[in-house]
Amino acid sequence: MDTICAISTPQGSGGIAVVRLSGDEAIRIAESLTCPLQDAKGYTLRHTRLHRSEEMLDEVMLSVYRAPHSYTGEDVVEIACHGSLYIQQEVLRWLVEAGCRIALPGEFTQRAFMNGKMDLTQAEAVADLIAAETKAEKDLALSQLKGSVSTELNSLREELLHFTSLVELELDFADHEELEFADRSELHKLAEKIEARLRELIQSFRTGNAIRNGIPVAIVGAPNVGKSTLLNALVGEQRAIVSDIQGTTRDTIEDSLILDGILFRLIDTAGLRETDDTLENLGIERSRQAVEKAQIILSVTERGKDFAQITVHEGQTLIPIYNKVDLLMPDERMNLIDGLCISAKHGAIDSLKTKLINVAKASMQTNAVMLSNARHYEAIVLAHTAIEAVLSGLKSGLSGELLSLDLQDCLNALGEVTGQITNQEVLSNIFSKFCIGK
Amino acid sequence: MDTICAISTPQGSGGIAVVRLSGDEAIRIAESLTCPLQDAKGYTLRHTRLHRSEEMLDEVMLSVYRAPHSYTGEDVVEIACHGSLYIQQEVLRWLVEAGCRIALPGEFTQRAFMNGKMDLTQAEAVADLIAAETKAEKDLALSQLKGSVSTELNSLREELLHFTSLVELELDFADHEELEFADRSELHKLAEKIEARLRELIQSFRTGNAIRNGIPVAIVGAPNVGKSTLLNALVGEQRAIVSDIQGTTRDTIEDSLILDGILFRLIDTAGLRETDDTLENLGIERSRQAVEKAQIILSVTERGKDFAQITVHEGQTLIPIYNKVDLLMPDERMNLIDGLCISAKHGAIDSLKTKLINVAKASMQTNAVMLSNARHYEAIVLAHTAIEAVLSGLKSGLSGELLSLDLQDCLNALGEVTGQITNQEVLSNIFSKFCIGK
Repeated sequence: MDTICAISTPQGSGGIAVVRLSGDEAIRIAESLTCPLQDAKGYTLRHTRLHRSEEMLDEVMLSVYRAPHSYTGEDVVEIACHGSLYIQQEVLRWLVEAGCRIALPGEFTQRAFMNGKMDLTQAEAVADLIAAETKAEKDLALSQLKGSVSTELNSLREELLHFTSLVELELDFADHEELEFADRSELHKLAEKIEARLRELIQSFRTGNAIRNGIPVAIVGAPNVGKSTLLNALVGEQRAIVSDIQGTTRDTIEDSLILDGILFRLIDTAGLRETDDTLENLGIERSRQAVEKAQIILSVTERGKDFAQITVHEGQTLIPIYNKVDLLMPDERMNLIDGLCISAKHGAIDSLKTKLINVAKASMQTNAVMLSNARHYEAIVLAHTAIEAVLSGLKSGLSGELLSLDLQDCLNALGEVTGQITNQEVLSNIFSKFCIGK
Repeated sequence: MDTICAISTPQGSGGIAVVRLSGDEAIRIAESLTCPLQDAKGYTLRHTRLHRSEEMLDEVMLSVYRAPHSYTGEDVVEIACHGSLYIQQEVLRWLVEAGCRIALPGEFTQRAFMNGKMDLTQAEAVADLIAAETKAEKDLALSQLKGSVSTELNSLREELLHFTSLVELELDFADHEELEFADRSELHKLAEKIEARLRELIQSFRTGNAIRNGIPVAIVGAPNVGKSTLLNALVGEQRAIVSDIQGTTRDTIEDSLILDGILFRLIDTAGLRETDDTLENLGIERSRQAVEKAQIILSVTERGKDFAQITVHEGQTLIPIYNKVDLLMPDERMNLIDGLCISAKHGAIDSLKTKLINVAKASMQTNAVMLSNARHYEAIVLAHTAIEAVLSGLKSGLSGELLSLDLQDCLNALGEVTGQITNQEVLSNIFSKFCIGK
């Protein structure tokens, strides 16, 4: 492969910057600008000068990696130079003049994928890791980088591949109708197992996606129970307008909050009530949509008012909350056992914060492996549809020929996730989202 | 020394970031969060995981350096992690919790100085190198980093120290007035050599400082010869207002230009002429000041007008220029042999650009070692004053006692430049200007 180079450290000026080279000529090109590296072993450092005929550009440290023991699987040299913008740009210019090509975004990781150093889910995890802003995001990306998603899918795919081969073998002996290499009851068991696991993974996407984009938390309830005050108390600023007037909040208002490394996306909604006001009804309609999409619903009321009627779907958690408990006598509070007691106005919301963290963590723990990537999700939905077709085909005694089509669909969809089956468009799309230099 | 840590790469998110640790516990602390490093040799790399009990933070590369073979002269570990802001901050937090202290700006370099890895001029050159924006600045900083300034001053200081010791030895034998360990004529020769060299260095500051801050180039001449048009042509934009009206430019207008890696600070001035206009006269006064401070003076005129009367000081270069040559017939141009022929309006200024580069380079080449740092300049001015006092003392037969006072002043001033003589205030002042992580 041709030799590529890029600045791998963040843009800007700093103490040091790292310029990475990878490719067949990486060591020769680095040598031509520094010092002999023939006897430099992999995983070693050199203190040297970057120079060209008479001109010296900088004093640098070189990290030398020899194929295949490097990030990309190719020969790699990393040049740690002084972090002046001028020097960084000059190092790049010198490398290009010495025969390197400027790397495309994500091209180092793409080469790592091409050279079998990681599969596609792991490559995608690298970009997720760099974009991680919370502990939960980082943990998710790291688990994917370690291969949690691919290991499981690969093992399911291997088993299915075995049966598919047997089914296809039957087709070669089509004259002998009695032949059945693939034990149908075993295949049925396997397909059921795969169907169940894929269903779980599909469900885990709600949580996985929520970790990346924030867990949606809808704040709902009757007018004037203090929903906007609660939003403000949670985010610690006057985000939503608060007043005594019913229907103050009309649009849904969003803000985010990080608790214990988990990102929550809070959605304050219009108060739910029967009204003839057209504008207010539009707001209430939006509230219902927010509830629909939320993973956690904070149903807020105050003593003497009922909780709003809310239908909770699978995977949603409802947290009933009594606000304004500061207005109550101690014994009045005692009776409010069907909800959390808080005072948003006075910032007494610690119990709610703890509850939010616990709910979020519980949903993470039930999913050892979580899908967080929309591309994986879509492929696994396809795989799931295919395996369902296999199951119903088995029940209806579908011919091996047709069965094998559904099996192939499932195998292909699973293979797309890990990159065993790829096409250039998908790859370009994935790696173009990377930062330069990784 | 306690163990310090900081992010050494530029601020922000990127492919990778480098966190540096230095100090007695650097390796032990890195070990406690990664893998055993007892048998890790200096100048080697490790691929490992950064983890703490159950939690894993990232997959990282460690660079291990063992004292004294490191930047600081102490044990150093550099952790190259994924460049997410979250991960960078967490690595720092984990290191602090494991016993590191966050480094002050420039503290790694300060330790390198303290441990004798570099002298003070070299330490200062590191900051200059990181701030370098042009090739000339980079070259200047690099030359200083290689020790050009300190090598020369140290050798002068050594020689002087030898004589000073002899003079002071005489004082111990004050009873024997005839004793003269230090040969006065040899001392005189040496003092003359040092005086001459310090004078050169002081003069080189004009150029050295100009390289860092831009070589000041004044554009002067009679009204309406096209001075502002020339400024605009040089910087490539409509920087100064241009009109046919005499006295259009009133304030001096500055802009900068990089040619062949050299920064020029162009100063367009009011046209020089006799006038009663008070405001215009103020402008003309400023023009004269600009000429006074300039290193290069572009004296602009057109055919049929005389050049302005300008007194050139030592170290200044006057470049006479005929503008508007596009209006002339070829044979008319032939006669303008006492100046460069250009047409600012039509961008025909290449000959002037070449001339600027040549003048700047010539002034750089006459100074093998250049002072560019105001602190060095001030100390060397002091040293120069002291050595002049020594010279005049020798002429007037000053007593050894008084002579040795002047000699000490000179030695101290020279020692301050390289850091052989330091005080905490000077050091704090120098290193506080560094970026974090270097």
